[in-house]
Amino acid sequence: MTLTIQEKTFLMNSIRDIVDFPKPGIVFKDITTLLADKEAYGVLMKHLQERYASYELTHVAGIDARGFIFGAALAQMLGIGFVPIRKKGKLPYTTVSEKYTLEYGVDEVEVHIDAFSNIDSPKVLLIDDLIATGGTAYAAANLINKVGAECVEACFIMGLDFLSGQSKLRDIVNVYTVIGVD
Amino acid sequence: MTLTIQEKTFLMNSIRDIVDFPKPGIVFKDITTLLADKEAYGVLMKHLQERYASYELTHVAGIDARGFIFGAALAQMLGIGFVPIRKKGKLPYTTVSEKYTLEYGVDEVEVHIDAFSNIDSPKVLLIDDLIATGGTAYAAANLINKVGAECVEACFIMGLDFLSGQSKLRDIVNVYTVIGVD
Repeated sequence: MTLTIQEKTFLMNSIRDIVDFPKPGIVFKDITTLLADKEAYGVLMKHLQERYASYELTHVAGIDARGFIFGAALAQMLGIGFVPIRKKGKLPYTTVSEKYTLEYGVDEVEVHIDAFSNIDSPKVLLIDDLIATGGTAYAAANLINKVGAECVEACFIMGLDFLSGQSKLRDIVNVYTVIGVD
Repeated sequence: MTLTIQEKTFLMNSIRDIVDFPKPGIVFKDITTLLADKEAYGVLMKHLQERYASYELTHVAGIDARGFIFGAALAQMLGIGFVPIRKKGKLPYTTVSEKYTLEYGVDEVEVHIDAFSNIDSPKVLLIDDLIATGGTAYAAANLINKVGAECVEACFIMGLDFLSGQSKLRDIVNVYTVIGVD
């Protein structure tokens, strides 16, 4: 269930650093190189499948858009439902929304009001590719609870350990990060 | 490998019609109800896995953002890589892009220039949730070929049969649609 040091190193090496994207001073963690590599993508997803097999989850909720990639694959591997949490204006039915602050300004995520209502007592794993300041994830976990489901854990492929996002998010939900980034 | 009439009806009934979204006169096909239902999501993905098991694909390419959901899950089930085709400005590394015309105006999709270069002779399945006029899919299939891969088929969960998208796209690639919508 735990990744070996070798597996973690393999996964880290499959992620590409892009300097100055989306703006100067930022090193963007490019997961497309991991996804294109069937070995790396397989090792990662098998690890998540093993970790969450015993959680008795009913849904995986993925954050728009890279969270869809890991979340939808994991939901299928676990044989459970997938729920998209989207940026404002993308979901067609009645939604519940939650605002969060960015470095400059405010953004908003939404979920369908009946997203988890096909099952009694829904138990949900929230997933995204990366946690930095954690604003989006905090809003998304709140949204899951707001529409009557239990968000049992928030999972990220990468966590930026030098930012405080994980500790803030731990106030409201368990947090699991596959790879810590210094 | 072929879905039964009962399975097709089950899948169609799991998709929700939203009238007048995103604008008046349009009936939006909401796949979130299909995804949240583990039975429907499972039937659909198992069908795709069976269909594509013999294609000797090396990658599945999904179109931003709903194509990520089906594409990433299918790639993992087939044990191959996943490549995102994104709207302009979202991919961090050097990209190749392709413009396409919308009802009003022009849009653009991109793929990383080295998206498929981790494997010799890449054979790619393109996937999205729905084909209407087919402009995005046509541009995406061209992009796959432009960066040196072979787009062997384009797969859609739903096809709007009253629009000409599928026949236009068939000029450059095989097209498979799981559910036809009148």
